[in-house]
Amino acid sequence: MSIITLTTDYGLKDHFVGALKGKIFSELPEARIIDISHDIDPFNVTETSYIINASYISFPKGTVHLIGVDIEKNKETQHIAMQWNDQFFICADNGILSMLTQKIKPQKMVMLNIHDRFPADFTDLDIFVKVACHLAKGGLLNVIGKEIQSIKQITELQSVVSNDGNSLKGNIIYIDHFGNVVTNITKKQFLEVAKGRSYEIVMKPNNIKTILPNYSAIADSNKFSIKNYEGKKLAIFNEAGYLEIAIFRSNPTKVGSANSLLGLNYRDPILIEFSN
Amino acid sequence: MSIITLTTDYGLKDHFVGALKGKIFSELPEARIIDISHDIDPFNVTETSYIINASYISFPKGTVHLIGVDIEKNKETQHIAMQWNDQFFICADNGILSMLTQKIKPQKMVMLNIHDRFPADFTDLDIFVKVACHLAKGGLLNVIGKEIQSIKQITELQSVVSNDGNSLKGNIIYIDHFGNVVTNITKKQFLEVAKGRSYEIVMKPNNIKTILPNYSAIADSNKFSIKNYEGKKLAIFNEAGYLEIAIFRSNPTKVGSANSLLGLNYRDPILIEFSN
Amino acid sequence: MSIITLTTDYGLKDHFVGALKGKIFSELPEARIIDISHDIDPFNVTETSYIINASYISFPKGTVHLIGVDIEKNKETQHIAMQWNDQFFICADNGILSMLTQKIKPQKMVMLNIHDRFPADFTDLDIFVKVACHLAKGGLLNVIGKEIQSIKQITELQSVVSNDGNSLKGNIIYIDHFGNVVTNITKKQFLEVAKGRSYEIVMKPNNIKTILPNYSAIADSNKFSIKNYEGKKLAIFNEAGYLEIAIFRSNPTKVGSANSLLGLNYRDPILIEFSN
Repeated sequence: MSIITLTTDYGLKDHFVGALKGKIFSELPEARIIDISHDIDPFNVTETSYIINASYISFPKGTVHLIGVDIEKNKETQHIAMQWNDQFFICADNGILSMLTQKIKPQKMVMLNIHDRFPADFTDLDIFVKVACHLAKGGLLNVIGKEIQSIKQITELQSVVSNDGNSLKGNIIYIDHFGNVVTNITKKQFLEVAKGRSYEIVMKPNNIKTILPNYSAIADSNKFSIKNYEGKKLAIFNEAGYLEIAIFRSNPTKVGSANSLLGLNYRDPILIEFSN
Repeated sequence: MSIITLTTDYGLKDHFVGALKGKIFSELPEARIIDISHDIDPFNVTETSYIINASYISFPKGTVHLIGVDIEKNKETQHIAMQWNDQFFICADNGILSMLTQKIKPQKMVMLNIHDRFPADFTDLDIFVKVACHLAKGGLLNVIGKEIQSIKQITELQSVVSNDGNSLKGNIIYIDHFGNVVTNITKKQFLEVAKGRSYEIVMKPNNIKTILPNYSAIADSNKFSIKNYEGKKLAIFNEAGYLEIAIFRSNPTKVGSANSLLGLNYRDPILIEFSN
Repeated sequence: MSIITLTTDYGLKDHFVGALKGKIFSELPEARIIDISHDIDPFNVTETSYIINASYISFPKGTVHLIGVDIEKNKETQHIAMQWNDQFFICADNGILSMLTQKIKPQKMVMLNIHDRFPADFTDLDIFVKVACHLAKGGLLNVIGKEIQSIKQITELQSVVSNDGNSLKGNIIYIDHFGNVVTNITKKQFLEVAKGRSYEIVMKPNNIKTILPNYSAIADSNKFSIKNYEGKKLAIFNEAGYLEIAIFRSNPTKVGSANSLLGLNYRDPILIEFSN
């Protein structure tokens, strides 16, 4: 029996997430359900895309990811399911899967076409529950949808190499719980453009000249204790492979964070300049 | 083995919910526990009543609902358990079950009388854990309580038909994660009073003249994309069957919500006028 | 199969907690995971220590507690695992376990020494997952670490008896979801110092002269209903055995709480004076 993960913008105050789990258990009593996040910024497709992209790697083959963000089927948007990297993803075709499909080619994609098999009061989420349980039990994509060759892409937030190849410009796509900011610049892109050159991440009041292997690496002198480095800014490639600007031992409500102290906000540009 | 659901006002920061689950697993290692909500407004019986009423329908027969809101047993309030619609509910007799019992007659209700079987340091919650595990294993209500014929009712927040039958007045009983506001006017009541007449939900700056079948139905013209309708107000009957005033693609912290944009707050009146 | 509990400062917005569970299930598909808290104040070792100390009692023997707060291994801090009271605790050696070890002597403590058995991109958390699954399966501590005799202690926040034995001075170490404040004065310490004498908890505008057996005990007169006592301040020993100053039926966002109404904050002193 495969794992079913849930990623939604439903929040945890209302009964929606509990009710969703009740529906899954009603259909599949032995289901193993894992919450990825229910605090996605409402209707935010970019944020969801990042969260899905950052988390799939921690799950085993066969995992089914139900994505409940902006799922109303309407004249512009269909419901889809995708097999990718031996995992399954169920969502609306609103661009949420683009960070995945830009990375590896999907194994199969279908547009769900089972809606008229169910009662009129079946909701969009009820359809997703049916599909998730079908896939968790090892059911085939072909049984629940019509194969398609392409899905909607989010392109607005991709990092860009300058014409002379001397700079890389990205954007902040996510601010995490610690107030650290994540950009859309991947380690792979960075290494391809850097080609071993030295670099500076442009930032006020002073640039960052080294991307660290981990947070604690900021404490580079044996003369001082780790505590002395609290509140210092740093850059790392995070576990998901994205450039992150962080404050060492960040605490948004006390010391402050990269978001609050450096004034870095969602969608702000981040520039890396390479020297010749 | 039945599902045990949890609905409390304990919040998720403290250890209370984890400890509650530890106690259930200590008693019943194979338990399947589902969180409905732990962010109930502290001691808010009306809000709890709505949440329970909106979520039971998603759970299978035999599900046991443990309700940890305002549970201290005292001179005024006893502990009760109820079998209703083939599910079980454990709570204090503080009115929390009235939205259910006003809908369908309970199958059986008992006042718990097992307290003196346990050590003096047993808490109210420990009693609920014992009862939940007993019922989840298929135990009988008679074994743990004395049958009763009535429980406390919340009456203050019921919708009212005017004497001339030309208007229906309700109140806002819940504000959800998206800032959409839920009233105590049910679809059933509305249809009974409307008798096919046209109607207006009175609201500033302009009334709502149609209750939509779903959120996306607000996008009624083929000339405009869905995106053009973001931020528009609308009314629907939600999945729980209650009239909801919503903002299309509401985001409380950005675009604003029915709560913030329309100034609609908990307990505010909502009036529907029917034309002759 | 033992339970694995999780206590972290990761928050629930990001994918971190879901990803952690995915890693545990990848390693141990039949794991039973319980969240204790993911809203620990970032890097707050005292708060974590209290939460762990208040919750272990609700879990069965053999439970494995994974503590993901301030876990980066660095020149000053090692990873440890401890068997204590027939349960297991995995964390960084940063003082988090001191409230436990001050209470009962540990059965065994080890410094984890398995880091070089894994790939270079293995994170600190990946190590904890390996150790948690090893212990949940009944694996031995000796296999994963080198036995040690002492661990780091937090001492700053202990309550103190005055030289004349006539007063006990503690501090607020935790503020809960209801805004009630928890001190580091235990029932055991109180009884030892009080020796049956009368006492006053010094507080403005008036002292508290009785520590109640439970919240509802504030309603001491049969002339008034329970509702009349809402908003009154009181003191109890909470379930974890610590002195708590509370507001009856506290609701931080409405009525106010001990934190907001009495101006009691994290680390503030609390004084109990005993009469002769």
